[in-house]
Amino acid sequence: MNYLWTGRLKGNLHEIAKKYTFSLEIDKNLASFDVVGSIAHVEMLVKQKIISKKDGTTIISALKKILDEINKGIFKFKEDDEDIHTAVERRLTEIIGTTGGKIHTARSRNDQIVFDEKIYLKYILPEIKSNIALLQKTILKRAEEGFGFCMPEMTHLQPAQPVLFSHHLIAYISMLERDRERISDALKRVDISPLGACACAGTSFNIDTEYTAKKLGFSRVFSNSIDVVSDRDFILEVLADFGILMVHLSRMAEELILWHSPFFGFVDLPEDFCTGSSIMPQKKNPDVLELLRGKTSVVIGDISGIFTLMKGLPFSYNRDLQEDKRFMFEVCEITILSALVMAEIIRKTHFKFSRMEEACNYGYIEATDIAEFLAKKGIPFRQAHHIVSEIVGIASEKGLPLSKLDKRVIKEIVCDDDVVNFIKNLDVHKSVKNKKSQGSTGLELVKSEIEKWKNILK
Amino acid sequence: MNYLWTGRLKGNLHEIAKKYTFSLEIDKNLASFDVVGSIAHVEMLVKQKIISKKDGTTIISALKKILDEINKGIFKFKEDDEDIHTAVERRLTEIIGTTGGKIHTARSRNDQIVFDEKIYLKYILPEIKSNIALLQKTILKRAEEGFGFCMPEMTHLQPAQPVLFSHHLIAYISMLERDRERISDALKRVDISPLGACACAGTSFNIDTEYTAKKLGFSRVFSNSIDVVSDRDFILEVLADFGILMVHLSRMAEELILWHSPFFGFVDLPEDFCTGSSIMPQKKNPDVLELLRGKTSVVIGDISGIFTLMKGLPFSYNRDLQEDKRFMFEVCEITILSALVMAEIIRKTHFKFSRMEEACNYGYIEATDIAEFLAKKGIPFRQAHHIVSEIVGIASEKGLPLSKLDKRVIKEIVCDDDVVNFIKNLDVHKSVKNKKSQGSTGLELVKSEIEKWKNILK
Amino acid sequence: MNYLWTGRLKGNLHEIAKKYTFSLEIDKNLASFDVVGSIAHVEMLVKQKIISKKDGTTIISALKKILDEINKGIFKFKEDDEDIHTAVERRLTEIIGTTGGKIHTARSRNDQIVFDEKIYLKYILPEIKSNIALLQKTILKRAEEGFGFCMPEMTHLQPAQPVLFSHHLIAYISMLERDRERISDALKRVDISPLGACACAGTSFNIDTEYTAKKLGFSRVFSNSIDVVSDRDFILEVLADFGILMVHLSRMAEELILWHSPFFGFVDLPEDFCTGSSIMPQKKNPDVLELLRGKTSVVIGDISGIFTLMKGLPFSYNRDLQEDKRFMFEVCEITILSALVMAEIIRKTHFKFSRMEEACNYGYIEATDIAEFLAKKGIPFRQAHHIVSEIVGIASEKGLPLSKLDKRVIKEIVCDDDVVNFIKNLDVHKSVKNKKSQGSTGLELVKSEIEKWKNILK
Amino acid sequence: MNYLWTGRLKGNLHEIAKKYTFSLEIDKNLASFDVVGSIAHVEMLVKQKIISKKDGTTIISALKKILDEINKGIFKFKEDDEDIHTAVERRLTEIIGTTGGKIHTARSRNDQIVFDEKIYLKYILPEIKSNIALLQKTILKRAEEGFGFCMPEMTHLQPAQPVLFSHHLIAYISMLERDRERISDALKRVDISPLGACACAGTSFNIDTEYTAKKLGFSRVFSNSIDVVSDRDFILEVLADFGILMVHLSRMAEELILWHSPFFGFVDLPEDFCTGSSIMPQKKNPDVLELLRGKTSVVIGDISGIFTLMKGLPFSYNRDLQEDKRFMFEVCEITILSALVMAEIIRKTHFKFSRMEEACNYGYIEATDIAEFLAKKGIPFRQAHHIVSEIVGIASEKGLPLSKLDKRVIKEIVCDDDVVNFIKNLDVHKSVKNKKSQGSTGLELVKSEIEKWKNILK
Repeated sequence: MNYLWTGRLKGNLHEIAKKYTFSLEIDKNLASFDVVGSIAHVEMLVKQKIISKKDGTTIISALKKILDEINKGIFKFKEDDEDIHTAVERRLTEIIGTTGGKIHTARSRNDQIVFDEKIYLKYILPEIKSNIALLQKTILKRAEEGFGFCMPEMTHLQPAQPVLFSHHLIAYISMLERDRERISDALKRVDISPLGACACAGTSFNIDTEYTAKKLGFSRVFSNSIDVVSDRDFILEVLADFGILMVHLSRMAEELILWHSPFFGFVDLPEDFCTGSSIMPQKKNPDVLELLRGKTSVVIGDISGIFTLMKGLPFSYNRDLQEDKRFMFEVCEITILSALVMAEIIRKTHFKFSRMEEACNYGYIEATDIAEFLAKKGIPFRQAHHIVSEIVGIASEKGLPLSKLDKRVIKEIVCDDDVVNFIKNLDVHKSVKNKKSQGSTGLELVKSEIEKWKNILK
Repeated sequence: MNYLWTGRLKGNLHEIAKKYTFSLEIDKNLASFDVVGSIAHVEMLVKQKIISKKDGTTIISALKKILDEINKGIFKFKEDDEDIHTAVERRLTEIIGTTGGKIHTARSRNDQIVFDEKIYLKYILPEIKSNIALLQKTILKRAEEGFGFCMPEMTHLQPAQPVLFSHHLIAYISMLERDRERISDALKRVDISPLGACACAGTSFNIDTEYTAKKLGFSRVFSNSIDVVSDRDFILEVLADFGILMVHLSRMAEELILWHSPFFGFVDLPEDFCTGSSIMPQKKNPDVLELLRGKTSVVIGDISGIFTLMKGLPFSYNRDLQEDKRFMFEVCEITILSALVMAEIIRKTHFKFSRMEEACNYGYIEATDIAEFLAKKGIPFRQAHHIVSEIVGIASEKGLPLSKLDKRVIKEIVCDDDVVNFIKNLDVHKSVKNKKSQGSTGLELVKSEIEKWKNILK
Repeated sequence: MNYLWTGRLKGNLHEIAKKYTFSLEIDKNLASFDVVGSIAHVEMLVKQKIISKKDGTTIISALKKILDEINKGIFKFKEDDEDIHTAVERRLTEIIGTTGGKIHTARSRNDQIVFDEKIYLKYILPEIKSNIALLQKTILKRAEEGFGFCMPEMTHLQPAQPVLFSHHLIAYISMLERDRERISDALKRVDISPLGACACAGTSFNIDTEYTAKKLGFSRVFSNSIDVVSDRDFILEVLADFGILMVHLSRMAEELILWHSPFFGFVDLPEDFCTGSSIMPQKKNPDVLELLRGKTSVVIGDISGIFTLMKGLPFSYNRDLQEDKRFMFEVCEITILSALVMAEIIRKTHFKFSRMEEACNYGYIEATDIAEFLAKKGIPFRQAHHIVSEIVGIASEKGLPLSKLDKRVIKEIVCDDDVVNFIKNLDVHKSVKNKKSQGSTGLELVKSEIEKWKNILK
Repeated sequence: MNYLWTGRLKGNLHEIAKKYTFSLEIDKNLASFDVVGSIAHVEMLVKQKIISKKDGTTIISALKKILDEINKGIFKFKEDDEDIHTAVERRLTEIIGTTGGKIHTARSRNDQIVFDEKIYLKYILPEIKSNIALLQKTILKRAEEGFGFCMPEMTHLQPAQPVLFSHHLIAYISMLERDRERISDALKRVDISPLGACACAGTSFNIDTEYTAKKLGFSRVFSNSIDVVSDRDFILEVLADFGILMVHLSRMAEELILWHSPFFGFVDLPEDFCTGSSIMPQKKNPDVLELLRGKTSVVIGDISGIFTLMKGLPFSYNRDLQEDKRFMFEVCEITILSALVMAEIIRKTHFKFSRMEEACNYGYIEATDIAEFLAKKGIPFRQAHHIVSEIVGIASEKGLPLSKLDKRVIKEIVCDDDVVNFIKNLDVHKSVKNKKSQGSTGLELVKSEIEKWKNILK
């Protein structure tokens, strides 16, 4: 008999139906937000003289008590509470009697639930932005510490060209910056108050939707009551944005997992983010990063799920929408925590620079420099590419690095002492120093990038 | 210090890492299965003389105590228990001391977890099959009760042709039968014991994998230790099969939601599977069916997620796999319950046959019968189709059913009194009686189908 | 021998490998963009004195010829052209000989392909925004035409409350406005030039990335060469945004499909967007809208696919990325066309207002108005809700609308003549007129909304 | 005027609608199947005396001409052909006049399209099974060639235990065997003829559905006309099965990509399945395998898409279903080719056994053997695990392999000369020889597995 809608229907929901429709376990996260929204709603009702000042005071003081109970973790949900809104109104009536029934004047669970979701996200979005910034700062610190060291940049998991370790780390920072931007943009669409839309048509009460919105920290108010109770596009957008962030983190995780493998050996991951094996005593496994990679799949599945949920739903509210919260909470919780986990791992990882530099000897990664040197001498780049290919082919067959290749062999192919000398003297540090283009791994350029990011992230 | 792998690593997992890797909340479902597996494992170790009979007896009796604690819900998981296997071994050692450490001889969490998942599914798959059968029987009962009544079958949500209500319901039964078949097939691949694969390479202990498998009710034993700890294809298959079943249920739900709308009015859903509105006093909403439709999205998202999880993982075990259980449990729980919910709703729904028959008057659904009548008279079907189109066009413009159309108008188009009479006398019951083809909605044919299914489902 | 990389590798790609890696069919869409980019690149090389003015002029005039060939549809792709970049360089060399080989100075296919994708999206995003605006204007026109008519707004596909037809249509406009905003935001992240990043490390040539970017209409230039060739987050974002738009269109489609069903009968869809049946002569099926709903699934699948593609990829370029274009083109083509299709359908649909108003008689949709009337008289809303529920229950049992219910029956429950009169006199137009709250369906409020949108969309 | 349904609707489909509904480009794959089905249909109509022998002969001979045109690639689709069925009937009428219109007697495009899809899959499923078998055989051959060599098996991308190279390859074979099984099971549900269901209700013609089914090679006939035109579960199942196979192939691809990286260096991929770089002359990139990994995402997206497509569709046929073919063809084409590509790569890859054996020196992979040795001496496994951890810890700190560790250091920890000797003498070949358990990497056991698979796959 706790249903807000008991009346025409007797409210004797079938036991299986109860279990099936039960959402409190998931919605509990929204409890305090729900009460905060109710307090502002009642203040507005009083201001507009829709309920009396006295009733308002009674209700608000009871709501504050309930809020306190929730925050202290002593609020008792009952088995028959259909959802969070029901639980609060039930408790309200327990405390102040039938006056509690006035709280639902000029509102519906349909606008209330959208409010709860939006206020939750208004709390989460700045938190994730701040976690991203923390991660960026942590990376920047490590990039600065490792400035000057080289590593082989890969394409296709094959050594491609030497780059500064710092340049590689700044790639992460640059990528994550777009995540922050995207989330700021999404916030604009979250930041529209739905309160006052009621079930779908608005109300004949003379409510003040601007007042409630302002009170609750919203920048804008909805302009169409049907739209605002029907749509969840703001959640789809936020989840997609979080999904992109998780994809980014999963890529960093993949690199660290590879680098922690003894075959790469570029890093030694922090012991308190690794686990061992129950059977193999020697193991130091990058479990936490693997989990991050795995949880990215959970997030991608949730994105797929929520798009599927919304597809083809007629207006306005349909109960399918209840499931949006399952997706929303799961994605938010995973993402918030994953950003923190990554920041802490990056902060504590031991980067093995000498191994990275040694690894630059694999795979003839200086070949492009030679081709560019030839091209500067007027040889069409395509031809220069062929010439260097030939030299690399010979060196590769002999199993020698280019610097160990016989001068005469090179000379025979390039017919130019300058080039021969260039090849024999080339090393990865020179290669990096030679890079001149904006955004490249050039030594001075990367140094300025570090300064630039320090300014942005301070 | 509760980690099974403490040793080389000190096991001081970072607080965030602990939170992030924590899976007990989800894995608890597997606790009793895990212990049952351990008991069989120890019995085998004794039989093979790998551990002494005395040690075996001590361990097994302690394991039975633990099983009892789990079943009674009094087993205490500790905050530091990394996972279910750890919790059990920890408790075992609490009870019997270091002898408990012998349990992990010749096994690893890598084979243990696959076992837990498989034994769980060996329990779930027959349950879902039985739920499907219950649903089929319930539908069959309603199909039999409503035998003889007609309804408009839709294509494109437009009235297409009259069919027997029972024929429509049997379509559900027929569709669900394939779900049962599919799940039986999947069971064959679940039913292969992984115990004995250990971490990935097998063991130098002389274990008897056949014995353990048989003891635990498996039909087959794995043949390659690397494959069996690396792969989860049996979960992908089961989840896809459950997803197909949920798609089927969602389609039934969609039809019932439409039919419960007053615009269709074909059914009155059971009150204890509907809810009301917190603001609109007149509502009787098909919430439970909408939730089922929504939960189908959750399942589809999970399928997408688990395929994504597995894609591109190198062999053998990687921690990403921990997340497979999140998908598996969510899909299994939703599906098991959804089938029951649907059975109960079908059992209690009030089918409004007179409204269905009245609805056969919408949309000229007898038109195909006329075209077939013309074709039987030798007119090429395409031409017959054109002729009837013309008649329907005229009737539609006049807003009249075909039976009310002036004989002369028809005659002018068809030039054949036979046809005119056929049209004037046609009704949906005659239409249904005329259907002769195997699998069609023909009255006698549907009657035999009912009998056929009674035999299959008894 | 057409591979740009022939040299160390002989370039004799296996026949199956050729077929498997072949992407020209899909990438052809990018051909003209690719050449435009190359022209700007060469202009920059000349300006920076990296190639001679003479070579530059030769190359550019040949590129213009190629562009012309592409635009005229006479450019011949050869079977051995690996991709679009290869095809262009191959043709260039055919026209001007080895000088053509200079075009690839200071660039790589890795930055070139990101450029092609970005310039394509810089062309597509404004187009979709303009299509959305067209759709919004079309809806607005129909909303204005139908101003004053009422329809039953549904929740749970059950009649909820009467609203103005125009209010329902404006819900679409309001929803679509967020799509336009989102796409504008996404454009900011597309609008960053990647040219100059080369393979991943930048170059030792003294190139001017700002110049090329400006020439090609980009607002910003990349700042990290590794990031810009590794990441495709801008595509993920655009596809998610397009997916949300498709979800929106699918919901409109669902409503129109329902309304076109004779059971609703709210609309008659334009004949040239419907098809018939090959067998049932009477059919007028909403095929185009069903396809739109179906194509939304294609888009959702593509979003799932591209997130999965990117997950866990190590830096920098990997060939997996080739598949991003398949997703991008499919989603863009479907979405662009779907918006147009919807605009044209809305423009031509016959809205059957008298049927909509008649449909307001289903389901006691005036009940909330009565509850609000009672609440205004000081009865707590929850109690008011119960009272009206009771009245509706009685009317429903008797099969009468509230207005036909005996005054005395009502009086007995509400004990207030005012309320009795309110009930007896209530109709949907009064209900709508009474709505006062911002964003509600109130008559005057909707009128202003129409004006507001006229200003925004003009 | 080419629409099969022209009549009541004039068939002047809007230009945009035409473009939007156009499916011929995709459906062309089904053309010959469609005609083959029509021939059997007409034979049945004649046999049942529904059309005259003479008409039947005329139609069939024209259909054979059309089939010939299709097979020769000279059949001309016209712009106005709505779909494949329309194109064929249009051409038929061109050849034999209005008699062609008789072909559509007792059928509909609704049962015809399901037939086309099923017959297509009846052709594809055996092909993929044969491709899988080819791949298995190829792997087996390489496994046999490399018998006796060891490699480090990884868990978490960390060296875990030494295994036989052949054992690792047989894991692939074992995994792929389940794919073959699954596809055989799916075939049972594809192999049910839908012909005779017509639009959704069956027909009043006295057709013989058994005859047509048998003629076309189907084992069973549908039993419910509504079910068979509404459902596509057989496609969902096949696509999920193909998705699992692609996941398997993507995992093999990932391993080969890693192994081809110089940091692992376990394989040298065949040159004709690698490509170079347009800028970096030294590159030999595993592009084809990366594409396979990428295309797995396309397949996963398609699975997600088709489940979403089907969710919540009311019965019976809806036009959304048209999009199922886009998913089906894409998945089938990718999968068929991917299996072949993998077979060819495995066939030609150079496995570098000496490097694999050298790699066994990384990461103390013999540690588990020592722990098992200790456990055999009666030390509880958990304690044995701790002891070995300690030894590994010391060795790791000193940067020494266990075999180089000072005997006295070991002795101090294990206090047992036997163990000390075991450790000092252990090597990976002994480790592998010691493995005794069924399914393990034990030398003799793997030898028998090779023989077993030879028998199965011959």
